Amino acid sequence: MDTISIIGMVSIIMAGLTIAVGSIAPALGEGRALSQALNAIAQQPDETPSITRTLFVGLAMVESTAIYCFVVALIIIFANPFWDYVTGL
Amino acid sequence: MDTISIIGMVSIIMAGLTIAVGSIAPALGEGRALSQALNAIAQQPDETPSITRTLFVGLAMVESTAIYCFVVALIIIFANPFWDYVTGL
Amino acid sequence: MDTISIIGMVSIIMAGLTIAVGSIAPALGEGRALSQALNAIAQQPDETPSITRTLFVGLAMVESTAIYCFVVALIIIFANPFWDYVTGL
Amino acid sequence: MDTISIIGMVSIIMAGLTIAVGSIAPALGEGRALSQALNAIAQQPDETPSITRTLFVGLAMVESTAIYCFVVALIIIFANPFWDYVTGL
Amino acid sequence: MDTISIIGMVSIIMAGLTIAVGSIAPALGEGRALSQALNAIAQQPDETPSITRTLFVGLAMVESTAIYCFVVALIIIFANPFWDYVTGL
Amino acid sequence: MDTISIIGMVSIIMAGLTIAVGSIAPALGEGRALSQALNAIAQQPDETPSITRTLFVGLAMVESTAIYCFVVALIIIFANPFWDYVTGL
Amino acid sequence: MDTISIIGMVSIIMAGLTIAVGSIAPALGEGRALSQALNAIAQQPDETPSITRTLFVGLAMVESTAIYCFVVALIIIFANPFWDYVTGL
Amino acid sequence: MDTISIIGMVSIIMAGLTIAVGSIAPALGEGRALSQALNAIAQQPDETPSITRTLFVGLAMVESTAIYCFVVALIIIFANPFWDYVTGL
Amino acid sequence: MDTISIIGMVSIIMAGLTIAVGSIAPALGEGRALSQALNAIAQQPDETPSITRTLFVGLAMVESTAIYCFVVALIIIFANPFWDYVTGL
Amino acid sequence: MDTISIIGMVSIIMAGLTIAVGSIAPALGEGRALSQALNAIAQQPDETPSITRTLFVGLAMVESTAIYCFVVALIIIFANPFWDYVTGL
Amino acid sequence: MDTISIIGMVSIIMAGLTIAVGSIAPALGEGRALSQALNAIAQQPDETPSITRTLFVGLAMVESTAIYCFVVALIIIFANPFWDYVTGL
Amino acid sequence: MDTISIIGMVSIIMAGLTIAVGSIAPALGEGRALSQALNAIAQQPDETPSITRTLFVGLAMVESTAIYCFVVALIIIFANPFWDYVTGL
Amino acid sequence: MDTISIIGMVSIIMAGLTIAVGSIAPALGEGRALSQALNAIAQQPDETPSITRTLFVGLAMVESTAIYCFVVALIIIFANPFWDYVTGL
Amino acid sequence: MDTISIIGMVSIIMAGLTIAVGSIAPALGEGRALSQALNAIAQQPDETPSITRTLFVGLAMVESTAIYCFVVALIIIFANPFWDYVTGL
Repeated sequence: MDTISIIGMVSIIMAGLTIAVGSIAPALGEGRALSQALNAIAQQPDETPSITRTLFVGLAMVESTAIYCFVVALIIIFANPFWDYVTGL
Repeated sequence: MDTISIIGMVSIIMAGLTIAVGSIAPALGEGRALSQALNAIAQQPDETPSITRTLFVGLAMVESTAIYCFVVALIIIFANPFWDYVTGL
Repeated sequence: MDTISIIGMVSIIMAGLTIAVGSIAPALGEGRALSQALNAIAQQPDETPSITRTLFVGLAMVESTAIYCFVVALIIIFANPFWDYVTGL
Repeated sequence: MDTISIIGMVSIIMAGLTIAVGSIAPALGEGRALSQALNAIAQQPDETPSITRTLFVGLAMVESTAIYCFVVALIIIFANPFWDYVTGL
Repeated sequence: MDTISIIGMVSIIMAGLTIAVGSIAPALGEGRALSQALNAIAQQPDETPSITRTLFVGLAMVESTAIYCFVVALIIIFANPFWDYVTGL
Repeated sequence: MDTISIIGMVSIIMAGLTIAVGSIAPALGEGRALSQALNAIAQQPDETPSITRTLFVGLAMVESTAIYCFVVALIIIFANPFWDYVTGL
Repeated sequence: MDTISIIGMVSIIMAGLTIAVGSIAPALGEGRALSQALNAIAQQPDETPSITRTLFVGLAMVESTAIYCFVVALIIIFANPFWDYVTGL
Repeated sequence: MDTISIIGMVSIIMAGLTIAVGSIAPALGEGRALSQALNAIAQQPDETPSITRTLFVGLAMVESTAIYCFVVALIIIFANPFWDYVTGL
Repeated sequence: MDTISIIGMVSIIMAGLTIAVGSIAPALGEGRALSQALNAIAQQPDETPSITRTLFVGLAMVESTAIYCFVVALIIIFANPFWDYVTGL
Repeated sequence: MDTISIIGMVSIIMAGLTIAVGSIAPALGEGRALSQALNAIAQQPDETPSITRTLFVGLAMVESTAIYCFVVALIIIFANPFWDYVTGL
Repeated sequence: MDTISIIGMVSIIMAGLTIAVGSIAPALGEGRALSQALNAIAQQPDETPSITRTLFVGLAMVESTAIYCFVVALIIIFANPFWDYVTGL
Repeated sequence: MDTISIIGMVSIIMAGLTIAVGSIAPALGEGRALSQALNAIAQQPDETPSITRTLFVGLAMVESTAIYCFVVALIIIFANPFWDYVTGL
Repeated sequence: MDTISIIGMVSIIMAGLTIAVGSIAPALGEGRALSQALNAIAQQPDETPSITRTLFVGLAMVESTAIYCFVVALIIIFANPFWDYVTGL
Repeated sequence: MDTISIIGMVSIIMAGLTIAVGSIAPALGEGRALSQALNAIAQQPDETPSITRTLFVGLAMVESTAIYCFVVALIIIFANPFWDYVTGL
């Protein structure tokens, strides 16, 4: 295998793998928090505004780890310095 | 194996793997949240509107991680810059 | 192995694997939600309509992740651009 | 290994694997839902009709993911475009 | 290895693996449902007929996924189109 | 390795593996159901006949998946069409 | 490796593996049922005879899956048709 | 590697592995049953004789699966027909 | 493979893997803490300010482990001393 | 590798592995039983003699599976018929 | 592969892997402790100062294990004696 | 690799692995028993002497499985008959 | 690969792996103990001094296992007798 | 690879692996015991002296398994008879 094949191959592999693996935990964590939020609303309907506000701020924080992975995946596909180097030869 | 075989092979592999792995956690997380929502409705029928509204907003947020994976899978199949480069040779 | 063997081989492998792996989580998630829905009906028989309505809307959302996988599997079998390219040579 | 061996081999492997792996989650999910349904009947005997109706509609939905896998397995055995292509040479 | 060895080998492997793996989840799911049914009978002896009726209809549905696997295993042993093709040469 | 070695080897491997793997889930499922049955008898001694009757019918159903595996294992040892074919050469 | 080495090797491997793997689930299942039986006796001392009777009938059924494995292991050691064939050459 | 090396090697490997793997589940199962027996004695001191009697009969049954493995391990070391055959050449 | 291929390949692999693996635990940990915070608000609405303050300080601390990984991933892509060394040759 | 290397190598590997793996389950099982015994003593101090008697008889039975492994490990090191055979050449 | 490739390759791999693996447990452990702290505040609002003080001292101790890993990762990237030795040749 | 390398290599590997793997279960089992003992003391302070006596006798029994592994590890390092044989050549 | 490459490579790998793997359990164990300490403070605010004193002594003991690993990792990087030997040639 | 490389390589690998793997279970076990001790102090503040005394004696016993591993790791690094033998050539 020549250099272009290798760099291309691992770029595709890691782009997919990064977002696939990286979306596991945020989805589980968000599902858990959402699930508990619905429970909390059922227990304390009067606190619905403060619960949903805390929920969405927290979800954004959890989502940020998924976004780190998405950013790295897009960098690997569209702004990959290693690919640019080897195809620029 | 020549370059086209390699790039084609890993593109197919990662397209399938990305969406397959990437759909595990959102489905589990959504199933959990949905399950809790039904429980919450059974506990507090009067809060059904606010529960379902929070549920669907939250599900959309969880679904977003599955969509990141679906987007990357489709990019790998139909807008793959590495494939375009090697077949454009 | 020549290019056609490789592309054909991984296409078959990923078509099966994508739908096989991709159906695990939706089935588990739906089973959980369904299970809780039956529990909720037993606790609050009067809320049966709103519970089943929320259940089926939610199941459709969970099912969507299985359908993403099924779509990708069928694309890989019947509309595979990599296979078309190598057999079009 | 020549092309026919490879394509035949992976077709057999994936046909079996797809249905074997793909039947795990639906069976577990259905077992769970069925188990809860029996519990719900024991708690609320008066709701038996609405419980069993919801149960069977839900089971059909879960079963659908097993059927996706069965369909793909049969396509791979009896309507496999890659096998048709290589044996049609 | 020649083609006959390969096709024969993977046929035997997949026949055994398909039914072995495919029987795991149905057995666990049925064991769970059966276990809950006995619990339900102990809680509500008066509902024994409706519980056992729901149980056996549900078990049949779970059993269906094991039967899909058994069918595919027997097809691979006795009606294998790939084996017929390579031995018909 | 010649064809006879290969076919013989995988036949022995799969015969053992099929029954070994295939006996895991039925044994666990039966153990669970039996365990619950004993619990149910302790809770409702008056229902012992209907509990044990449901138990044994259900155990037979779970046992059926172990028997599928045992049947396939014996077919692979004593009525293996692939072995007959290669030794009949 | 010649044919005798291969067949002998896999026979030894599978004989040990079959009984080793095949004894896991029955031992766990029996341990669970036995554990519950002792609990049931402690809850309902008056039902000791019917509990132990159900226990031993059930244990025999669970033990049967271990015996399937033991039978296959002994067949592989002492009545192995593949070994007889290759040493009969 | 010649035949004697191979047969000797796998005999040693399987002798150790069979008893090592085969002792996992009986030890866990017995530990569980023993643990429950002590709990039962604490709940119903008056039933100590019937509890310990049931316990030891049951432990013997669970121990039997460990003994199957020990028997096969000793057969492989000291009465191994494959080793006898290859060293008898 | 030459040195540039190797260093480039492992850089891409580790950049993706580091952030993908490194985002699992923070997302799960944050999801758990967030989930508990919503529960705590439901139990003690009067303590909402001190709960959310402790929550966000704690989340920042958990997030820090994700950021360590993100930093290392970016160093590997854009400030990699090993890549600089080998391409500077 | 010659025969002595192979037989020596696997003997060392299996001696260590057998006792290492074989001590996992007995230690866990004994820990569990011991843990429950302490609990039982706390619940029923008056039954301490019968609890400790049952405990030590049971521990001996669980310990027996560890001793099977220790025996096999020592046989493999100091009374290994395969090693005796190959070094006796 | 020459020495520089090897040392460079494993340095990159281990830098990423060390921090990625090493951040799993601290994040989970901190998430758990944080989660419990919020619960404790909800139970005993009056103890908020001593709870948060204990929490942050404890978190720092848990964080220390993540920092050990971060330190080792940075040593491997920027102060690696093995890399210095081989490039100093 | 010559015989001395092989025997030395596997001796080092197994010495470390035996004690590393072999210390897992005793440590967990002892931790569990110790944990329960502290709980028992808190429930029945008057029984502290009999609890700690039973605890230490039991811990010694669990520790024995770790000591089996430590003994085998030391035999492999310092009294290894296979090493003595090959270096005695 | 020459000796320096090999020794350097495994030194880097093990330095990272040792601290990465070795920090998992202490972080989890400390997180658990810390979590329970906060719970204990909430239950018995009057015992805060003795709880935190026991907590920090215990944490130091758990931390010691992480420090063993950190020490070994630093020895491997900066005081490695094997590296000194091979580079001293 | 020559003998020195091999023996050096596996010595480094096992030194790190032994302490890394060997510290997992003691840290978890100690964390659990410590956690329970804090709980016990909260339940029975009057028993603090006997609880902490039992705790530290028990922790020392659990720590002993970690120390076995640390001892073996140091023997492998600094008093390794196999390394001494091969470098003494």
